[in-house]
Amino acid sequence: MIEETRYGLRVDTRLAFDDAVTATVEALKTEGFGVLTTIDLAQALKEKVGREMPRYLILGACNPPLADRAVQAEHEIGLLLPCNVAVYEQESGGQVRVAAMAPLPTIGMIGGGGALQEVAREADSRLRRALGVVERA
Amino acid sequence: MIEETRYGLRVDTRLAFDDAVTATVEALKTEGFGVLTTIDLAQALKEKVGREMPRYLILGACNPPLADRAVQAEHEIGLLLPCNVAVYEQESGGQVRVAAMAPLPTIGMIGGGGALQEVAREADSRLRRALGVVERA
Repeated sequence: MIEETRYGLRVDTRLAFDDAVTATVEALKTEGFGVLTTIDLAQALKEKVGREMPRYLILGACNPPLADRAVQAEHEIGLLLPCNVAVYEQESGGQVRVAAMAPLPTIGMIGGGGALQEVAREADSRLRRALGVVERA
Repeated sequence: MIEETRYGLRVDTRLAFDDAVTATVEALKTEGFGVLTTIDLAQALKEKVGREMPRYLILGACNPPLADRAVQAEHEIGLLLPCNVAVYEQESGGQVRVAAMAPLPTIGMIGGGGALQEVAREADSRLRRALGVVERA
Protein backbone atom coordinates (compact mmCIF):
# COMPACT_ATOMS: atom_id res chain seq x y z
CA MET A 1 0.00 0.00 0.00
CA ILE A 2 1.32 3.42 -0.92
CA GLU A 3 1.39 5.70 2.07
CA GLU A 4 0.92 9.42 1.49
CA THR A 5 2.90 11.70 3.75
CA ARG A 6 2.77 15.52 3.69
CA TYR A 7 5.07 15.69 0.69
CA GLY A 8 5.93 12.10 -0.16
CA LEU A 9 4.56 8.85 -1.56
CA ARG A 10 6.13 5.93 0.23
CA VAL A 11 6.30 2.15 0.29
CA ASP A 12 8.02 -0.37 2.49
CA THR A 13 9.91 -3.08 0.67
CA ARG A 14 11.12 -6.52 1.68
CA LEU A 15 14.22 -6.08 -0.47
CA ALA A 16 17.72 -5.55 0.89
CA PHE A 17 19.05 -2.04 0.37
CA ASP A 18 21.06 -2.55 -2.83
CA ASP A 19 18.31 -4.66 -4.39
CA ALA A 20 15.80 -1.96 -3.52
CA VAL A 21 17.94 0.62 -5.31
CA THR A 22 18.18 -1.57 -8.41
CA ALA A 23 14.45 -2.30 -8.39
CA THR A 24 13.64 1.38 -7.94
CA VAL A 25 15.85 2.50 -10.83
CA GLU A 26 14.30 -0.17 -13.08
CA ALA A 27 10.73 0.66 -12.08
CA LEU A 28 11.34 4.36 -12.68
CA LYS A 29 12.82 3.59 -16.08
CA THR A 30 9.70 1.65 -17.07
CA GLU A 31 7.71 4.81 -16.31
CA GLY A 32 10.01 7.01 -18.39
CA PHE A 33 12.10 8.44 -15.54
CA GLY A 34 15.85 8.39 -15.96
CA VAL A 35 18.00 8.80 -12.86
CA LEU A 36 20.12 11.92 -13.51
CA THR A 37 21.79 12.23 -10.12
CA THR A 38 22.56 10.00 -7.16
CA ILE A 39 23.50 11.39 -3.77
CA ASP A 40 24.68 9.05 -1.04
CA LEU A 41 23.46 11.19 1.84
CA ALA A 42 24.68 8.81 4.55
CA GLN A 43 28.17 8.73 3.02
CA ALA A 44 28.24 12.51 2.52
CA LEU A 45 27.22 13.24 6.11
CA LYS A 46 29.68 10.68 7.43
CA GLU A 47 32.50 12.37 5.51
CA LYS A 48 31.49 15.96 6.19
CA VAL A 49 30.08 15.99 9.70
CA GLY A 50 31.29 12.63 11.03
CA ARG A 51 27.85 11.27 11.81
CA GLU A 52 27.00 7.63 11.12
CA MET A 53 23.45 7.11 9.93
CA PRO A 54 21.48 4.31 8.27
CA ARG A 55 21.87 4.01 4.52
CA TYR A 56 20.17 6.78 2.57
CA LEU A 57 20.33 7.44 -1.18
CA ILE A 58 18.63 10.32 -2.98
CA LEU A 59 17.97 9.62 -6.66
CA GLY A 60 17.14 12.55 -8.94
CA ALA A 61 14.57 11.17 -11.38
CA CYS A 62 13.50 12.96 -14.53
CA ASN A 63 10.87 12.11 -17.13
CA PRO A 64 12.00 14.35 -20.01
CA PRO A 65 8.61 14.93 -21.72
CA LEU A 66 7.02 15.78 -18.37
CA ALA A 67 9.95 18.03 -17.35
CA ASP A 68 9.70 19.77 -20.71
CA ARG A 69 5.99 20.47 -20.26
CA ALA A 70 6.60 21.70 -16.70
CA VAL A 71 9.36 24.12 -17.73
CA GLN A 72 7.28 25.43 -20.62
CA ALA A 73 4.40 26.06 -18.21
CA GLU A 74 6.66 27.78 -15.66
CA HIS A 75 10.29 28.57 -16.40
CA GLU A 76 11.46 28.58 -12.79
CA ILE A 77 9.96 25.16 -11.98
CA GLY A 78 13.49 23.80 -12.50
CA LEU A 79 13.95 24.67 -8.82
CA LEU A 80 11.74 21.65 -8.09
CA LEU A 81 13.39 19.30 -10.60
CA PRO A 82 14.41 16.53 -10.77
CA CYS A 83 11.85 14.55 -8.80
CA ASN A 84 13.63 13.15 -5.77
CA VAL A 85 13.21 9.48 -4.93
CA ALA A 86 14.82 8.42 -1.66
CA VAL A 87 15.79 4.87 -0.77
CA TYR A 88 16.56 4.67 2.91
CA GLU A 89 16.80 2.39 5.90
CA GLN A 90 14.78 3.07 9.00
CA GLU A 91 17.71 1.82 11.05
CA SER A 92 21.01 0.27 10.01
CA GLY A 93 20.31 -3.08 8.37
CA GLY A 94 16.59 -2.64 8.99
CA GLN A 95 13.47 -2.09 6.91
CA VAL A 96 14.08 -0.33 3.60
CA ARG A 97 11.67 2.33 2.44
CA VAL A 98 11.34 3.99 -0.94
CA ALA A 99 9.74 7.43 -1.07
CA ALA A 100 9.13 9.84 -3.94
CA MET A 101 8.47 13.54 -3.70
CA ALA A 102 4.70 13.72 -4.19
CA PRO A 103 3.94 15.83 -7.27
CA LEU A 104 0.33 16.76 -6.47
CA PRO A 105 0.81 18.29 -3.00
CA THR A 106 4.02 19.94 -4.20
CA ILE A 107 2.36 21.68 -7.15
CA GLY A 108 -0.68 22.40 -4.98
CA MET A 109 1.49 24.02 -2.31
CA ILE A 110 3.19 26.34 -4.77
CA GLY A 111 -0.13 27.25 -6.35
CA GLY A 112 0.85 26.02 -9.81
CA GLY A 113 -1.62 26.58 -12.66
CA GLY A 114 -3.60 24.11 -14.78
CA ALA A 115 -0.79 22.99 -17.08
CA LEU A 116 1.47 22.24 -14.11
CA GLN A 117 -1.32 20.40 -12.35
CA GLU A 118 -1.81 18.20 -15.39
CA VAL A 119 1.91 17.37 -15.43
CA ALA A 120 1.75 16.65 -11.70
CA ARG A 121 -1.21 14.29 -12.18
CA GLU A 122 0.64 12.30 -14.82
CA ALA A 123 3.84 12.22 -12.75
CA ASP A 124 1.80 11.08 -9.75
CA SER A 125 0.29 8.15 -11.66
CA ARG A 126 3.65 7.09 -13.01
CA LEU A 127 5.42 7.31 -9.65
CA ARG A 128 2.62 5.34 -7.96
CA ARG A 129 2.96 2.58 -10.54
CA ALA A 130 6.74 2.50 -10.06
CA LEU A 131 6.43 2.38 -6.26
CA GLY A 132 3.84 -0.39 -6.55
CA VAL A 133 6.28 -2.47 -8.56
CA VAL A 134 9.02 -1.94 -5.96
CA GLU A 135 6.65 -2.87 -3.14
CA ARG A 136 5.67 -6.14 -4.81
CA ALA A 137 9.26 -7.06 -5.78
CA MET B 1 17.62 43.29 -4.79
CA ILE B 2 16.56 39.75 -4.00
CA GLU B 3 13.16 39.00 -5.40
CA GLU B 4 10.96 36.52 -3.56
CA THR B 5 8.81 34.31 -5.74
CA ARG B 6 6.36 31.69 -4.46
CA TYR B 7 9.11 29.17 -3.85
CA GLY B 8 12.32 30.92 -4.92
CA LEU B 9 14.79 33.64 -4.03
CA ARG B 10 16.08 35.25 -7.19
CA VAL B 11 18.52 37.82 -8.49
CA ASP B 12 19.36 39.17 -11.91
CA THR B 13 23.05 39.31 -12.71
CA ARG B 14 25.07 41.27 -15.25
CA LEU B 15 27.41 38.32 -15.69
CA ALA B 16 27.56 36.13 -18.77
CA PHE B 17 26.18 32.63 -18.24
CA ASP B 18 29.41 30.74 -17.52
CA ASP B 19 30.70 33.51 -15.27
CA ALA B 20 27.40 33.49 -13.39
CA VAL B 21 27.79 29.74 -12.78
CA THR B 22 31.34 30.20 -11.47
CA ALA B 23 30.32 33.12 -9.25
CA THR B 24 27.34 31.16 -7.91
CA VAL B 25 29.40 28.08 -7.04
CA GLU B 26 31.99 30.29 -5.28
CA ALA B 27 29.40 32.28 -3.36
CA LEU B 28 27.66 29.09 -2.23
CA LYS B 29 30.99 27.67 -1.10
CA THR B 30 31.64 30.74 1.05
CA GLU B 31 28.34 30.03 2.80
CA GLY B 32 29.21 26.37 3.38
CA PHE B 33 27.24 24.87 0.48
CA GLY B 34 29.01 22.38 -1.72
CA VAL B 35 27.55 21.63 -5.15
CA LEU B 36 26.83 17.89 -5.13
CA THR B 37 25.05 17.63 -8.48
CA THR B 38 24.82 19.61 -11.71
CA ILE B 39 22.07 19.05 -14.24
CA ASP B 40 22.22 20.78 -17.61
CA LEU B 41 18.47 20.92 -18.14
CA ALA B 42 18.70 22.64 -21.52
CA GLN B 43 21.11 19.99 -22.80
CA ALA B 44 19.06 17.13 -21.36
CA LEU B 45 15.82 18.36 -22.94
CA LYS B 46 17.55 18.98 -26.25
CA GLU B 47 18.84 15.40 -26.28
CA LYS B 48 15.71 13.73 -24.98
CA VAL B 49 12.81 15.68 -26.46
CA GLY B 50 14.56 17.69 -29.18
CA ARG B 51 13.58 21.08 -27.87
CA GLU B 52 16.02 23.97 -27.92
CA MET B 53 15.75 26.26 -24.95
CA PRO B 54 17.86 29.00 -23.34
CA ARG B 55 20.69 27.82 -21.10
CA TYR B 56 19.53 26.36 -17.81
CA LEU B 57 21.64 24.65 -15.13
CA ILE B 58 20.32 23.17 -11.90
CA LEU B 59 22.93 22.96 -9.14
CA GLY B 60 22.23 20.73 -6.14
CA ALA B 61 23.71 22.62 -3.18
CA CYS B 62 24.23 21.09 0.23
CA ASN B 63 25.45 22.59 3.49
CA PRO B 64 26.36 19.41 5.41
CA PRO B 65 25.78 20.65 8.99
CA LEU B 66 22.40 22.08 8.00
CA ALA B 67 21.45 18.94 6.04
CA ASP B 68 22.45 16.84 9.05
CA ARG B 69 20.25 18.86 11.40
CA ALA B 70 17.36 18.69 8.93
CA VAL B 71 17.57 14.91 8.55
CA GLN B 72 17.82 14.43 12.31
CA ALA B 73 14.70 16.55 12.73
CA GLU B 74 12.80 14.68 10.02
CA HIS B 75 14.21 11.58 8.37
CA GLU B 76 12.28 11.91 5.11
CA ILE B 77 13.35 15.52 4.51
CA GLY B 78 15.95 14.06 2.13
CA LEU B 79 13.14 14.27 -0.44
CA LEU B 80 13.72 18.04 -0.40
CA LEU B 81 17.52 17.87 -0.48
CA PRO B 82 19.81 19.12 -1.88
CA CYS B 83 18.77 22.76 -2.13
CA ASN B 84 18.39 23.54 -5.81
CA VAL B 85 20.00 26.64 -7.24
CA ALA B 86 19.15 27.35 -10.87
CA VAL B 87 21.22 29.51 -13.19
CA TYR B 88 19.23 30.26 -16.29
CA GLU B 89 18.81 32.62 -19.21
CA GLN B 90 15.53 34.39 -19.79
CA GLU B 91 16.12 34.01 -23.52
CA SER B 92 19.10 32.67 -25.46
CA GLY B 93 22.05 34.98 -24.89
CA GLY B 94 19.93 37.24 -22.72
CA GLN B 95 19.71 38.23 -19.06
CA VAL B 96 21.00 35.59 -16.65
CA ARG B 97 19.11 34.91 -13.46
CA VAL B 98 20.15 32.92 -10.40
CA ALA B 99 17.41 31.48 -8.22
CA ALA B 100 17.51 29.31 -5.13
CA MET B 101 14.73 27.19 -3.72
CA ALA B 102 13.47 29.33 -0.85
CA PRO B 103 13.84 27.39 2.42
CA LEU B 104 11.30 29.30 4.52
CA PRO B 105 8.21 28.97 2.30
CA THR B 106 9.22 25.38 1.49
CA ILE B 107 9.40 24.33 5.14
CA GLY B 108 6.32 26.43 5.89
CA MET B 109 4.36 24.69 3.11
CA ILE B 110 5.17 21.23 4.37
CA GLY B 111 4.33 22.24 7.94
CA GLY B 112 7.80 21.43 9.29
CA GLY B 113 8.33 21.76 13.04
CA GLY B 114 10.52 24.11 15.06
CA ALA B 115 13.87 22.40 14.45
CA LEU B 116 13.28 22.38 10.69
CA GLN B 117 12.22 26.00 10.76
CA GLU B 118 15.43 26.95 12.50
CA VAL B 119 17.44 25.13 9.84
CA ALA B 120 15.38 26.88 7.16
CA ARG B 121 16.05 30.29 8.74
CA GLU B 122 19.78 29.71 8.72
CA ALA B 123 19.73 28.34 5.16
CA ASP B 124 17.66 31.36 4.09
CA SER B 125 20.22 33.83 5.52
CA ARG B 126 23.11 32.00 3.91
CA LEU B 127 21.44 31.74 0.50
CA ARG B 128 20.49 35.43 0.58
CA ARG B 129 24.09 36.38 1.30
CA ALA B 130 25.30 34.15 -1.56
CA LEU B 131 22.76 35.60 -3.99
CA GLY B 132 23.69 39.12 -2.93
CA VAL B 133 27.32 38.41 -3.79
CA VAL B 134 26.33 37.08 -7.23
CA GLU B 135 24.13 40.10 -7.88
CA ARG B 136 26.93 42.53 -7.08
CA ALA B 137 29.59 40.60 -9.07
